[in-house]
Amino acid sequence: QSNVTVYGVADAYFGYGKMDDNKFTGVNSGGWAGSRIGFKGSEDLGNGLKGVFTLEYGIDIDQNEGVGSRGTAANSTTRARQQFVGLQGGFGFIGLGRQYSPGYYVLKYDAINVVPFSPQFILAGAQGSNIVAGSAARVSNSINYKSPDFGGLTLNAIYGFNEENQDNNRQAGDLAAIGADYANGPLAIGLVYSQVKQDAGAIATEKFNGVADETKKEAYLGAAYDFGMFKLMGSYQIIKDATAAEDDNKVWQVGSVVPVSSVGKVHLSYGRTDADTNDSDAAAWSLLYSHSLSKRTLAYVGYTQVQNDDATNYSVLARGTEVVNGVTVPNNDEDSRNFLIGLNHAF
Amino acid sequence: QSNVTVYGVADAYFGYGKMDDNKFTGVNSGGWAGSRIGFKGSEDLGNGLKGVFTLEYGIDIDQNEGVGSRGTAANSTTRARQQFVGLQGGFGFIGLGRQYSPGYYVLKYDAINVVPFSPQFILAGAQGSNIVAGSAARVSNSINYKSPDFGGLTLNAIYGFNEENQDNNRQAGDLAAIGADYANGPLAIGLVYSQVKQDAGAIATEKFNGVADETKKEAYLGAAYDFGMFKLMGSYQIIKDATAAEDDNKVWQVGSVVPVSSVGKVHLSYGRTDADTNDSDAAAWSLLYSHSLSKRTLAYVGYTQVQNDDATNYSVLARGTEVVNGVTVPNNDEDSRNFLIGLNHAF
Amino acid sequence: QSNVTVYGVADAYFGYGKMDDNKFTGVNSGGWAGSRIGFKGSEDLGNGLKGVFTLEYGIDIDQNEGVGSRGTAANSTTRARQQFVGLQGGFGFIGLGRQYSPGYYVLKYDAINVVPFSPQFILAGAQGSNIVAGSAARVSNSINYKSPDFGGLTLNAIYGFNEENQDNNRQAGDLAAIGADYANGPLAIGLVYSQVKQDAGAIATEKFNGVADETKKEAYLGAAYDFGMFKLMGSYQIIKDATAAEDDNKVWQVGSVVPVSSVGKVHLSYGRTDADTNDSDAAAWSLLYSHSLSKRTLAYVGYTQVQNDDATNYSVLARGTEVVNGVTVPNNDEDSRNFLIGLNHAF
Repeated sequence: QSNVTVYGVADAYFGYGKMDDNKFTGVNSGGWAGSRIGFKGSEDLGNGLKGVFTLEYGIDIDQNEGVGSRGTAANSTTRARQQFVGLQGGFGFIGLGRQYSPGYYVLKYDAINVVPFSPQFILAGAQGSNIVAGSAARVSNSINYKSPDFGGLTLNAIYGFNEENQDNNRQAGDLAAIGADYANGPLAIGLVYSQVKQDAGAIATEKFNGVADETKKEAYLGAAYDFGMFKLMGSYQIIKDATAAEDDNKVWQVGSVVPVSSVGKVHLSYGRTDADTNDSDAAAWSLLYSHSLSKRTLAYVGYTQVQNDDATNYSVLARGTEVVNGVTVPNNDEDSRNFLIGLNHAF
Repeated sequence: QSNVTVYGVADAYFGYGKMDDNKFTGVNSGGWAGSRIGFKGSEDLGNGLKGVFTLEYGIDIDQNEGVGSRGTAANSTTRARQQFVGLQGGFGFIGLGRQYSPGYYVLKYDAINVVPFSPQFILAGAQGSNIVAGSAARVSNSINYKSPDFGGLTLNAIYGFNEENQDNNRQAGDLAAIGADYANGPLAIGLVYSQVKQDAGAIATEKFNGVADETKKEAYLGAAYDFGMFKLMGSYQIIKDATAAEDDNKVWQVGSVVPVSSVGKVHLSYGRTDADTNDSDAAAWSLLYSHSLSKRTLAYVGYTQVQNDDATNYSVLARGTEVVNGVTVPNNDEDSRNFLIGLNHAF
Repeated sequence: QSNVTVYGVADAYFGYGKMDDNKFTGVNSGGWAGSRIGFKGSEDLGNGLKGVFTLEYGIDIDQNEGVGSRGTAANSTTRARQQFVGLQGGFGFIGLGRQYSPGYYVLKYDAINVVPFSPQFILAGAQGSNIVAGSAARVSNSINYKSPDFGGLTLNAIYGFNEENQDNNRQAGDLAAIGADYANGPLAIGLVYSQVKQDAGAIATEKFNGVADETKKEAYLGAAYDFGMFKLMGSYQIIKDATAAEDDNKVWQVGSVVPVSSVGKVHLSYGRTDADTNDSDAAAWSLLYSHSLSKRTLAYVGYTQVQNDDATNYSVLARGTEVVNGVTVPNNDEDSRNFLIGLNHAF
């Protein structure tokens, strides 16, 4: 018998986006969940201890890219989603590799539970947050510890080394994060703290967004409550010193998932940024309908709008640019409107 | 049980090529069929409907390249062969992703049924055709529809978005193609029409060869008849505005597959270009012998010659160049002679 | 049933390295054995003949890299470990693809049986040797023959084409190697000869280290003897014309593996370079403890030190550099000290 399970997600959608005069029409990968292929397994070591591994790669199902692609296309920067080897037992889990930060699991408190159409992802991502369900919460060179379940409470801590080979600034770019999740019946609450150590001249731009000479600090509180007829979710987070202006920006969102039939659900979310910089309080909302064709196959259709402020240019499908005096510049204060219809298959 | 089938082709050959003074000796990937690894599966959704996916990547079995490689080596430009998720049912098939154009299936009417040694592929490929069994017929960002079988007749249509993010020229680089195949007893006939929309300043060179300001239009007719003792195949195609000179070029080929024993077959093909440009009527022929060692393993040996015209420089293994006044230039009007012996294993 | 076995190694370690003022702290891939994922299979062709294939890719379990990565990170240059299709039978094995040179199997005579912490690998690798258990012994575009077992004796020969497309210098960069292994009870002996043909202006730097105008020639003798209480290993090798100075350098090592419990082993090795160039006689030693948690999972901890000479700058985790007059230069004559603790899981 094999020691490996091959698994993944194949997800593609037709999308149309418009932002001022800029338009996008095309087929993209990963509207409901990022397309991926993974290999995982575990081995019983006795006494309740297990050796475990996961090797999981992003794929661009719409593109000419390989397993763990390196494309220059905007949506192909995630190559390895997660890669680790670890031990699992009564003590919890400890792993080494490229692993999810606690910040990744905010999708539990998000009615639009995946990038790139979640208001939380769009707005917090634009603030340089590492507490988003995307690549910014994937940590290379990391040690991860997850606690066992203490009556509904679980803890999750990670430390990622930026591996700067220098006498000084050894921690420059290192990411440290800790999360706590509590689940009890219909209620779920999550707390996350995340920081990236910064130091002039040693910013790891590839791994972590950041500002020279400041440690980026972030905190997040999320909650979900299942009323049966519908599920209510929301979150509030603050990102300190995440941008070059050293702003302290806040992002909040509230949403709901409403089952409308045995197989259909409506997903709604509204989010907003409260930024230090003037005219940067953008908002976004998203309305999706998901239709389960089976346990593993799901069709979806939706609309996402980003309402930019006078100084923001956040977008999803179409990039908002304009030509001024012959130079292409960001076109602020324009809405990003995005329609999508797609198919998601888990295997 | 697993939801995934891992499959592929491992194919390598020893090749010797000569073109004027240029020679090639080495081991290459994919002489009989492109080396690949794929992951596919399907799920029954009830009422005859199925969710299906395929993730298939090219590999360079002779090189230091990964799964879906990005090498600079000439033969490593295909990363994803096909990647899609779709639905299959009584209505046919509809898929989203990177998929084969109807033009890919011309290999059914080609006695040398795979690149890179097929005269049809060599000659039509040199005209910038998208109707070849190679990467030019793999369409990113595409929607594909395949009809069910109507008494031997099947239809296949694809639309690939070039995803130019512009107010004007939204269709620039988009590929549209439709194919019809008819099979009845020993007879098979195929028709393909394919076009790539072009517009000045918005050519998608990576995806589709093309000329500014002209829409490349192509038509193909292929047929095969199985006489029992041997199988006869042939095709005729026209490529309009495919090159910078806006030429209308034609390519035809005729070939035969002759079983010579229970496991051995001789494959012969001759093809010719009829080009608008002067002195560009190249020809090519190929003679291969294939020997089945089992259902999944096949040995092959062959010879392919390209007969260049005064203004063409088509080659297979050795690039025809010469040094004139210290500058390396294409060496026209030289024959490309290629010998190969290899092993193909499907898994 | 499937025709493919998916297998691999997930190996990660926490490492700390120091070389003069330079320090490294982080999590790396492959301390005990290179992390990898592979796909292999075989098909019975009758009469004892089998068709076989292997597709095996390096992975950087700590990094954001795909299957067969192409990263710019120092440890991500191995994309394909081996890729081949071949025939196996009474005559032995013959394969085409990217394959291991006989020089790869020197790990059988090395108490620290894997890179990058083996003194033999560190020292011979620094001399540009292709007789090391690393990428320098992986040969693209190659034909490999392995003999059957003749009463304990096996032969292994490879020829790798550099595929220079030129009239002259057709063999420039080609690698040829032959190895003989003899195993009888507790005794094992190995001999390897390897050469890379060089010629001015046609050096394949990507594939093989080498010097213009000289053919690099190498010979290796290794042996191991299992005394039961412990196993003794050693090797001696000479590398001629491997460096720009056309030096003839020698590397030797001696080591031992000592079982200290039913699951624990101590691994010790000491190696030394005897180089033509002045002040280049570096040494290295390594002490590791391995602890089997099961058949497929192993924990390890160890220390490796490289003792550089006045003119050498060999290192493992931390690169030895210093700033002189504002310019970063290699810092010679400094020890490289390296500590590691990790987990290895085979699947």
